Amino acid sequence: MPTKYETLLEKVYEINDLGKAQAILSWDREVDMPAAGAAARIQQMTTLSRLIHELSTSDEFGEMIENAAAELDGADYDSNESSLIRHLRRSYEDARKLPSEFVVRASEVTGKAHGHWVKARAENDFASYEPWLAQIVELSQEQAEYYGYEDEKYDALLDKYERDMKTAEVRAIFDAVKAELVPLREAIEEQGTAVDDSLVHQHFDIDKQKQFARYAAAAIGYDFNRGHLGTVVHPFATSFSRDDARITTRWNPDFLNPALFGALHESGHAMYEQGTHPDLARTPLARGTSLGIHESQSRMMENMVGRSRGFWQTHFPVLQAFFPEQLGQRTAEDFYRAINKTKPSLIRVEADELTYNFHIILRFELEQAMLNGDLAPKDLPTAWNDKMLALLGITPPTDSEGCLQDVHWSKIYFGYFPTYALGNLYAAQLFETAVSQNPAIADELAQGQTTALASWMREHVHQHGRKFTPRELIQRATGQPLSHAAFIRYTKAKFSDIYEL
Amino acid sequence: MPTKYETLLEKVYEINDLGKAQAILSWDREVDMPAAGAAARIQQMTTLSRLIHELSTSDEFGEMIENAAAELDGADYDSNESSLIRHLRRSYEDARKLPSEFVVRASEVTGKAHGHWVKARAENDFASYEPWLAQIVELSQEQAEYYGYEDEKYDALLDKYERDMKTAEVRAIFDAVKAELVPLREAIEEQGTAVDDSLVHQHFDIDKQKQFARYAAAAIGYDFNRGHLGTVVHPFATSFSRDDARITTRWNPDFLNPALFGALHESGHAMYEQGTHPDLARTPLARGTSLGIHESQSRMMENMVGRSRGFWQTHFPVLQAFFPEQLGQRTAEDFYRAINKTKPSLIRVEADELTYNFHIILRFELEQAMLNGDLAPKDLPTAWNDKMLALLGITPPTDSEGCLQDVHWSKIYFGYFPTYALGNLYAAQLFETAVSQNPAIADELAQGQTTALASWMREHVHQHGRKFTPRELIQRATGQPLSHAAFIRYTKAKFSDIYEL
Repeated sequence: MPTKYETLLEKVYEINDLGKAQAILSWDREVDMPAAGAAARIQQMTTLSRLIHELSTSDEFGEMIENAAAELDGADYDSNESSLIRHLRRSYEDARKLPSEFVVRASEVTGKAHGHWVKARAENDFASYEPWLAQIVELSQEQAEYYGYEDEKYDALLDKYERDMKTAEVRAIFDAVKAELVPLREAIEEQGTAVDDSLVHQHFDIDKQKQFARYAAAAIGYDFNRGHLGTVVHPFATSFSRDDARITTRWNPDFLNPALFGALHESGHAMYEQGTHPDLARTPLARGTSLGIHESQSRMMENMVGRSRGFWQTHFPVLQAFFPEQLGQRTAEDFYRAINKTKPSLIRVEADELTYNFHIILRFELEQAMLNGDLAPKDLPTAWNDKMLALLGITPPTDSEGCLQDVHWSKIYFGYFPTYALGNLYAAQLFETAVSQNPAIADELAQGQTTALASWMREHVHQHGRKFTPRELIQRATGQPLSHAAFIRYTKAKFSDIYEL
Repeated sequence: MPTKYETLLEKVYEINDLGKAQAILSWDREVDMPAAGAAARIQQMTTLSRLIHELSTSDEFGEMIENAAAELDGADYDSNESSLIRHLRRSYEDARKLPSEFVVRASEVTGKAHGHWVKARAENDFASYEPWLAQIVELSQEQAEYYGYEDEKYDALLDKYERDMKTAEVRAIFDAVKAELVPLREAIEEQGTAVDDSLVHQHFDIDKQKQFARYAAAAIGYDFNRGHLGTVVHPFATSFSRDDARITTRWNPDFLNPALFGALHESGHAMYEQGTHPDLARTPLARGTSLGIHESQSRMMENMVGRSRGFWQTHFPVLQAFFPEQLGQRTAEDFYRAINKTKPSLIRVEADELTYNFHIILRFELEQAMLNGDLAPKDLPTAWNDKMLALLGITPPTDSEGCLQDVHWSKIYFGYFPTYALGNLYAAQLFETAVSQNPAIADELAQGQTTALASWMREHVHQHGRKFTPRELIQRATGQPLSHAAFIRYTKAKFSDIYEL
């Protein structure tokens, strides 16, 4: 006779397997599928989504969760069993909060809005997209009411991506980041130190780029025996189990950075999934706990490791061997400076490490204003440009390069943007703690090695998967709640050095 | 209010989508998955299989079929609706004939038998595999009883792969093939004409092989806009919809044939799926009607087109341009002869067009003898070697190169082998009919073009998918039941020419 918990687990495994099948269909769509296959693929994925939704919101599943919870009463908070029950209760409640009618309607609106956004961006025609944005805002407001909130409406949406995080906390942290980094950006501009990045803008053979990207991803600790590198248009990482966590990148023959640092970024994501504890397999705990913590692992590998001086002092000679003509006459220090050049720019996804957060803070503030009805969608372009000037000192010449640039506002993704910047802050705080606890980490990094760093992250972050909320995790791992302090220290030290402040 | 037929269709679509998801997981496993991902993948695929089995054998599904059948009573036999009902009834009945207990037991035995077969083949140790073969034979006998049969036990198993085909028919046809082709093989050996195939055994750069394989597959009519070429260890074709039908091949740097003719073979399979009528989408009718008819399309493209003189008179100059050093001094006729060299050999999958059928006839006869209890598993090696001598004039030096060579007898696949040879016979009969009905086909083929041939196949074979049984299809397409005659005419003409008989 199986226990109630075992019965629950069997159902959890079933739902997990269908979710992973869904993820494999999605991977294949980006990597191998011919464009003509899209119509059938949407049907296949819709069927899987419907089945998963039915199974995971059924009365029967709710009873299974409660029966197992009653059986486990008194189990240790930190145990896998208690953690799974906590997670399932929350996601079951959330999933049942949205009426089917709303889900269908939201899906129909976003299905249409996406096409209008693509067209508006291509034609720099915000006016044509404004009515769709208005509907997205209304749906987001409606969704917030279904989920419910105590303090601010935005809390309800933020919670979907960063469990238990409050808008007020994020606002305080982002305000501190602004207060510190806007002056830093201005000081760098005033100082006028030149950084030459022409060496990364040359022709680089794609086959050799692939070989080097694999070398670099393996060097930071991504396990290719339990992974795979695919080629796509919009890079991502995905996992089908801890033993099959994949990365993707795109290849640009005339610019070295996108593929190389993209591969390191996605490797950071995949290493998180590869590091989840085997005992969590086939449950929703076997993945990163939030978008923000996930992003901390990718940004750490991309920037704090991948754009560090130590990494390139060791690995630049290998890169030179792949590209002797382009890089043979340059030094590791030249390369280090080139890949860390900072300059205010219009497009978020192309922004450098210092200015990236400004792009996020701007969106975070505008989303709240729209959600709360303080900013009418028609006034978005003006509000956007005002904030760009205040934060980055530049003004987009077109809305396509301004408020129309991201896909997120053609979907019900309000609350998602802040997690990108939170990732940078979590990363710095985790990194600083790791280095302070184990000095070997810094010694290794100075020689381009990450074994000790990856080991610390595996112990304090990866293995736990989703057992703990991001708030719990960062407290346990660093002994502090999230703060901007470590990120400010890291950024000031790095850019003051490069820009000779 | 949906009709009963519409209600049935919704369920059919759901089962289809899950089956296609299963196929995509299987594709990914062969093409992209790291080996470490296998354990989780088996779990994911098992979950999907179980769901599909539950849905497609439920009482509810049976009622849906019968309700729709009653509603459609009197519909045209050729209509999609009637054809779908016929197909569903048959497969529903079949699926419910096997007790769950048997399915589980068979799966356990074959799971273990496979490993023992791999080991026995590697170590040339038939004795160690004999007890497992005995269990496979017993399970096959048991399965035949569950399915039921009127005349011969083997009918029950053959019917799984070649619906409605009778063992007695296949026996009569294979006997005729033997009677005609054993003397032809002997005559060729006696004549002693030398065919030089050293030109295909040179070093061929794999990237260039890939480019040419794509060129050749497109030349015979495979639509890459609705397909994809992947690299695998054991090549196959698969489809996720008519607009996403894929091929795979493996690459040998020192032998041109395997990848090139493998790609043409799989293209023939995929063109069948690409050619199914759009109205059959998302139903089990949207695929080839039987393994034999499917094989007819692949063998036709591989051999009757891909190894024809006309094809290479047009396309050999392109191949030469890819490999000037290897082929620059040779003629299209040299190449045509090289790729059509015939010589008795031990391994089925490496056999040439003339001797291939002997390998199948041998297995067909031995399977029946084992199934009927006329041949004890322990006596298989002797029986195998006797038949090799009679049919091919050679004797395997080891069982690994004899009765242990194929994977099929480590699974419950009795009845599968004959479809390979039936494919050759169907191919010749369809091809001969097509050419007689439309003389432009021969003119085009003489210039390496297949538009008219592919168009005839689409109209008479592909578009129907599984609407008709193979018996119905061949009768409708050629006006005759299956016979060996066209294949014998084709083979005699081709090899008498090459070998100057």
